[in-house]
Amino acid sequence: MSSEAQQSEEVYEAFLEHVRKYNYVGDASGVLSWDQQVMMPEGGTPARSKQSSTLSTVHHELLTDDKLSEWLDELDGTVDDEQQAVVREVRRSHERANAIPEDLVKRLSEASSNALPVWEEAKAKSDFSLFEETLEELVELRREYAAAIDPDRDPYEVLFEDYEPYIDIDTAEAILTELREELPALIDAIAESDVEPADPFEGEYDAETQESLVTEALDTLGYDWDRGRLDTAPHPFSTGTQFDARVTTRFAPDDPMGAIGSTIHEFGHASYTLGLSDDDYGTPLGDSRDMTVHESQSRLWENHVGRSKPFWRLFASEVEEQFGITASPQAFYEHANEVYDDNMIRVEADELTYHMHIVVRFEIERDLIRGDLDVSEVPQVWNDKVEEYLGVRPDNDAEGCLQDIHWTHGNFGYFPTYSLGSVLASQLFGAAERELGDLDDDIESGNFDRLYGWLNENVHEHGCRYTTTDLIEEATGEAFTAEYFLDYANKKYGNLYNL
Amino acid sequence: MSSEAQQSEEVYEAFLEHVRKYNYVGDASGVLSWDQQVMMPEGGTPARSKQSSTLSTVHHELLTDDKLSEWLDELDGTVDDEQQAVVREVRRSHERANAIPEDLVKRLSEASSNALPVWEEAKAKSDFSLFEETLEELVELRREYAAAIDPDRDPYEVLFEDYEPYIDIDTAEAILTELREELPALIDAIAESDVEPADPFEGEYDAETQESLVTEALDTLGYDWDRGRLDTAPHPFSTGTQFDARVTTRFAPDDPMGAIGSTIHEFGHASYTLGLSDDDYGTPLGDSRDMTVHESQSRLWENHVGRSKPFWRLFASEVEEQFGITASPQAFYEHANEVYDDNMIRVEADELTYHMHIVVRFEIERDLIRGDLDVSEVPQVWNDKVEEYLGVRPDNDAEGCLQDIHWTHGNFGYFPTYSLGSVLASQLFGAAERELGDLDDDIESGNFDRLYGWLNENVHEHGCRYTTTDLIEEATGEAFTAEYFLDYANKKYGNLYNL
Repeated sequence: MSSEAQQSEEVYEAFLEHVRKYNYVGDASGVLSWDQQVMMPEGGTPARSKQSSTLSTVHHELLTDDKLSEWLDELDGTVDDEQQAVVREVRRSHERANAIPEDLVKRLSEASSNALPVWEEAKAKSDFSLFEETLEELVELRREYAAAIDPDRDPYEVLFEDYEPYIDIDTAEAILTELREELPALIDAIAESDVEPADPFEGEYDAETQESLVTEALDTLGYDWDRGRLDTAPHPFSTGTQFDARVTTRFAPDDPMGAIGSTIHEFGHASYTLGLSDDDYGTPLGDSRDMTVHESQSRLWENHVGRSKPFWRLFASEVEEQFGITASPQAFYEHANEVYDDNMIRVEADELTYHMHIVVRFEIERDLIRGDLDVSEVPQVWNDKVEEYLGVRPDNDAEGCLQDIHWTHGNFGYFPTYSLGSVLASQLFGAAERELGDLDDDIESGNFDRLYGWLNENVHEHGCRYTTTDLIEEATGEAFTAEYFLDYANKKYGNLYNL
Repeated sequence: MSSEAQQSEEVYEAFLEHVRKYNYVGDASGVLSWDQQVMMPEGGTPARSKQSSTLSTVHHELLTDDKLSEWLDELDGTVDDEQQAVVREVRRSHERANAIPEDLVKRLSEASSNALPVWEEAKAKSDFSLFEETLEELVELRREYAAAIDPDRDPYEVLFEDYEPYIDIDTAEAILTELREELPALIDAIAESDVEPADPFEGEYDAETQESLVTEALDTLGYDWDRGRLDTAPHPFSTGTQFDARVTTRFAPDDPMGAIGSTIHEFGHASYTLGLSDDDYGTPLGDSRDMTVHESQSRLWENHVGRSKPFWRLFASEVEEQFGITASPQAFYEHANEVYDDNMIRVEADELTYHMHIVVRFEIERDLIRGDLDVSEVPQVWNDKVEEYLGVRPDNDAEGCLQDIHWTHGNFGYFPTYSLGSVLASQLFGAAERELGDLDDDIESGNFDRLYGWLNENVHEHGCRYTTTDLIEEATGEAFTAEYFLDYANKKYGNLYNL
């Protein structure tokens, strides 16, 4: 090794040590957040807020550290491909964080905190006018935030990149537009179909029974209990590292299928996290890609496995046994895939209408941030769009534009990644089957090794080595496309509803 | 306010913000540690080690920050009494941390990590010779550590101050010596007594039943579930803040009394933490005093309440009901206070012989650190002392000098605080009864308000405002003394064993 190369290696090591410190503090924050949502007694909130916001401050200080700028400049272009990927990822986060004035960071954080009770009251009273001024402020602050990062670009594009930095906004918009153009016809046809899907569940089921069932589902899928755990949370989520990726779920007495779906969804997220490289823990090479890829993993397991016929041929007997009911695999399959075309609530939506809920939010937040829509018009536009895409109209703001918390948190640009993730799930599942052959037999026999292996090799273990766009092309041999999702949806629902 | 006073107030505020940041990071570490001991799946260890050691580094950096030196110099003597107490506490920690070279911090941490598997193997094989070299290294490193803090003072005194900075070592040693001189006669008399205490428990009890019983015990004592929770851990502990102070316990099938005692012990710790000032959270005024005072609170509830006759008149019916056994309050009382004079294991010891186990450890670690005892002599000296104080001799190293983990962690000077805490518990309970009158009726009726109120007013709510020595004198009107404990022990056991 030349002395120059050696010196560069030393700089890289010092840089990486700092990056690891930054990421370990971030993961410590994740533990505090898990605890707060799952374990913490209610009285703990004031102390936990202080602890968490202090870790955020430390995290931010490490990311904006001047030393990082120097290292990045010194390393850029002088290191190998893997190291260059690390430099790329850290530079992006570092520059973004440094672009935002401290004062704006503070105002954003305060505005979100203040917005929460206002939104809660407006939602409880189903009265958007109570929230209007607050939403205006949040939109303005996020426009200011986008301008601080790049005053010359479309502000919505800039915000979208906080959640999905490596899929360009035109590609994302094209995919969402395709969903908007293609799905309503299918949804309409389903609404007009005479088919009534079966529902094998009757009455109510206690949390203990449901927990034992979803635990069995996790066992079936091969969840590694030595590196994870299952708990309940009001809003299910998963969190952790490749050494400890936990899932949460929730149980509604009359909706065991909801618990199964939600648990398998979170399992998908956790399986991605658990598939990251152990050796690269603490660096971008051992960290997951952004929202779209993460959501592709949760949706792949939730929809392409958990809502598939072979899965129910495998799992129906388990439900029968634990719930003491008799029903065919086909009945469970139908119930898992029932389309609720009169549902107004995103989080209760089925696999198909879900995307119309997303398109409504995407179009409205995009236009708000671009300055093409006035905040006061949101309820009217929302209801019009829901009616146009789903054929039903919300009765009030609570089941309309006030239902989601995202904007209250100042998260504009997040919603699209939900649909993009589902679309990518189909594309990845298609590529896996192209390479491995049909996976029905694997699923029906509870053998997930080949599927998991393919995902691990083509997605998980790369961490952030590739950009999202490159990762998709490497894994599937194609550019990001909605084709697979639309084929899948048309075939599956055409069959189910005799279209 | 003069402009000078105003400026000083501003400096104090900046200083305090830094102190809070330091303490919030420390409390975040506490959450990670609780999670690791109670919730974390085993596979999580590698990631958790990185996260925790990073938080320790950040914590240490905040404590050794040069700004802190400047602020401390600027504030010292110019602030009011409360602020001066904060300055005193922070200065002490800051100077101690700065006295230790980074390299030594690292070597200490590595030596403890390396020592753990060696100690575990030696203990498993009951062979001290396997651990001898490691213990020598740990002793040497701690002597070096003590010399770095103050080369001119007794190194054991310096180490003791890490756990108990505000009780001088002569006072501590005098109290331990008094226990060593007074208790063996009582223990001997008990061994010779014909009295056989009752044992109402027969057979084995499952964890679920025991958990429901200790939950009832916590309810009875008034544990605030909105600011705490109960879980199980291999080594019970309590941790947290005034907003969220959690307890853990463990269940052995044949020892429900052990679970009750351990749970009430941890409740005592938690009750101290929960009694700290909310407004002063994050500063020494809202933080607990050191080990002796903390242990006094756990021992007071464990021994003076949980092992008292009136408590068993209150609680016996609860055990009868939940365990389906019939026994008198007197029988439970006798069982809770049985003296096991042939027990070699500290953590299984009764309230009385416990102190002899501590004295053995204290005398040995003191002599090791002072250079008056060679590591190779430890097993022999240990066994001789146990035989002298307890009248029984360990058969092997595992039930002798290898039983405790403390030295493996490099903790020399910790053991004495266990006994000092029990002694202080008696002194505080005596002072409370002097002021409030006899508390038997309160305890028997499950009314702990007056006792809790007294402890809160005289101990908890002061945080670290007073030094330990001053706190004891303020609360009891006397200097720290073993008199109350010895009176209590002689009276209680004299009565129990017809001496």
